[in-house]
Amino acid sequence: MNAEIVAIGSELLLGQIVDTNSAWMAQRLADLGVNLFYKTVVGDNPDRMLEITNRAMERSDLVITSGGLGPTQDDLTREIVARAANRDLVMDPELLAQIEARFRSRGMIMTENNNRQAMIPEGAIPVTNPNGTAPSFIVEDPRAVVYCLPGVPFEMKWLFDNELVPYLRGKFGLSDSIYSRVLKISDLGESGVDDLVGHLIANSVNPTVGVLAHPGQVDVRITAKSASREEADELIAPLEEEVRELLGGHVFGVDNETLPQVLGKLLRSRGLTVASYEGLTGGVIAQQLQDAGEELFLQGTVGRQPGVLKSVLSAADESSLSLDRLMGDGAALADGLAAGVRAQTGAALGLAVHSVPEGAKPTENLNPGHTYISVSSAGGTWRRQYNFAGPGLPDRTRTALNALDLLRVTILQDRYRA
Amino acid sequence: MNAEIVAIGSELLLGQIVDTNSAWMAQRLADLGVNLFYKTVVGDNPDRMLEITNRAMERSDLVITSGGLGPTQDDLTREIVARAANRDLVMDPELLAQIEARFRSRGMIMTENNNRQAMIPEGAIPVTNPNGTAPSFIVEDPRAVVYCLPGVPFEMKWLFDNELVPYLRGKFGLSDSIYSRVLKISDLGESGVDDLVGHLIANSVNPTVGVLAHPGQVDVRITAKSASREEADELIAPLEEEVRELLGGHVFGVDNETLPQVLGKLLRSRGLTVASYEGLTGGVIAQQLQDAGEELFLQGTVGRQPGVLKSVLSAADESSLSLDRLMGDGAALADGLAAGVRAQTGAALGLAVHSVPEGAKPTENLNPGHTYISVSSAGGTWRRQYNFAGPGLPDRTRTALNALDLLRVTILQDRYRA
Repeated sequence: MNAEIVAIGSELLLGQIVDTNSAWMAQRLADLGVNLFYKTVVGDNPDRMLEITNRAMERSDLVITSGGLGPTQDDLTREIVARAANRDLVMDPELLAQIEARFRSRGMIMTENNNRQAMIPEGAIPVTNPNGTAPSFIVEDPRAVVYCLPGVPFEMKWLFDNELVPYLRGKFGLSDSIYSRVLKISDLGESGVDDLVGHLIANSVNPTVGVLAHPGQVDVRITAKSASREEADELIAPLEEEVRELLGGHVFGVDNETLPQVLGKLLRSRGLTVASYEGLTGGVIAQQLQDAGEELFLQGTVGRQPGVLKSVLSAADESSLSLDRLMGDGAALADGLAAGVRAQTGAALGLAVHSVPEGAKPTENLNPGHTYISVSSAGGTWRRQYNFAGPGLPDRTRTALNALDLLRVTILQDRYRA
Repeated sequence: MNAEIVAIGSELLLGQIVDTNSAWMAQRLADLGVNLFYKTVVGDNPDRMLEITNRAMERSDLVITSGGLGPTQDDLTREIVARAANRDLVMDPELLAQIEARFRSRGMIMTENNNRQAMIPEGAIPVTNPNGTAPSFIVEDPRAVVYCLPGVPFEMKWLFDNELVPYLRGKFGLSDSIYSRVLKISDLGESGVDDLVGHLIANSVNPTVGVLAHPGQVDVRITAKSASREEADELIAPLEEEVRELLGGHVFGVDNETLPQVLGKLLRSRGLTVASYEGLTGGVIAQQLQDAGEELFLQGTVGRQPGVLKSVLSAADESSLSLDRLMGDGAALADGLAAGVRAQTGAALGLAVHSVPEGAKPTENLNPGHTYISVSSAGGTWRRQYNFAGPGLPDRTRTALNALDLLRVTILQDRYRA
């Protein structure tokens, strides 16, 4: 069964509202195993609404509309769906009674225009909306089933889960659902992932493999269509193993796990604490470490002024090195700062991220635009170096995730032990 | 001129991503006075992409696509737009050279699949994307102009403002436009703003007045439709004055100004520096102060462990107060920490934000769920106290903006002077 969403409302085309309804419905439909092939947004204009509704009814089995069911003049969904289905618009006495009762119970006077909300296309199945005055209805046309929902998110969601889903299960005998397994990848870009698993994307059918890039991380999603979670797991398992083999230690977690969560678990399981220094990222690393677990995060220091650098460096042996010299050596400065925050706080792990601004003067040991990430531990100092292109600041989220990833790998590979 | 947006990507139809790009573009097009009649989302499927692209080219003058320009197998926009416009797909040597240079400068190896990104429909106008490898291009077909943008929000927005808008002005000679003036409001919620300016919203026509709430701030937008910026300014000015009178010192800025920018200007104009302590906000305040101006921001300290608190407090006279006592007095602890970071760094202003977790034991001087914001200065200590409802962490952004606002007001009212 192929479904299509039509979101109605000029406010959606003026950018005053982000259409979160559609994404919510899309996810629900995916979980139900319903193919969603199109989402269209159209304004409160009768001709364009009719065109879109007709088009949707031609190419899809199920058309879900949201919005345009209110009492005002520009709420046109009732009229347009009736025209698309070649039906008259009629007053539904039961809906009218419900709306009247709703107004009475709230001590409000029902204005004339609210009558319009009780009109539905002739022969349509009315659906009671317990959370608002705009009723929902279903038109079973030979071309397609049209299910009209209100646009208010709270009302729409209730009706979707409590009315639309049971209706679909009954009407279309839905059995298959879609199940996914997401592998979360760090320290590897989208094209790097594609190089390693691209052949699986191209050649897989059920399950399918897809790649989605976020700043600083990539998701590899394995999706199976099947009658049960158990069956899906069996389908997914061999492909997951294959992807894991290809991507190795870059897989840091699964499904909804975040890198801070994964790092928090690791730190906790080994009884480790962490402290951080950061410059251009401005506090994003502290934030993520606090998300990892605030009892594990002893202190975060943020700032790029010489005073901060000196006070952090002076806590460690690196105080013997002059700041002037270190300013010309990005890697040594990051190492010194990592040792400094570790010494200052007594944390097991010190993390420092030093980004050299694009405009800095390059030297033998200093690359403008480069970011040096150091982890100081009893087992030694571990470092990564990145060049994030782009003007001005490095991408803060990406830098922070890469820094957390270095912590993760240092712990996982037991490199932190003396 | 009628425009249409086509957002491409199966992830948008699986509900994995909320399509914020479209709302952003819609708002920009509205500001330009371009009619946007449809937005369509379609997955990475060649047949359906072709159908949608053809349909859009039939009914609209301008089709803006976003997404599907990446290096992977399922990035099909290039191919489909070429087919819809009846053109071959050809390698653009200049784009290829740009992509190669980009990889070189980042010290990365360019894989085979990145070559695909230099392919564009024959005769298309290539548009350089300085923020990513996916180039943008324009196809001027007799049916419609198709402008293809990448889906990555940061890249899309830059290209939209710096390439697409100038192109549209030249190509379509846009004249009547919508002009807006946005007044940015702090320390007042949406309903508070509505209480003060609600009558203007209800009664204004051209210009109109609208209110839009964000976490921690509210926008009051005055919008005029006219032939020129000058004419619009004349229409907007009296209404702006009225709104400013009603909202007073809550108006912190205009248009795209952010609170960090406004604060940065203020600090700079008075030659002031700032240092910060924060707990539950985890680094968001440091981030915003760094955005205000990193040369003004001497140090940010993040963390809630006793060690951090003690080391900050010990820098100021407040060391005489025991931490145990202060832990039971939210306001005194915030004051002590603000004085501490100021003494530690020699900053003119010390900012401390102490949030009491919801689960804390209430005392006479400690309200669980409350946030205490203190500014320490030569002119004394100034404090605000908020109760942000909701479980767990306070809203970090809102807390940070309120903290920055207290700094702003302290400076504006000259309360920082000895």
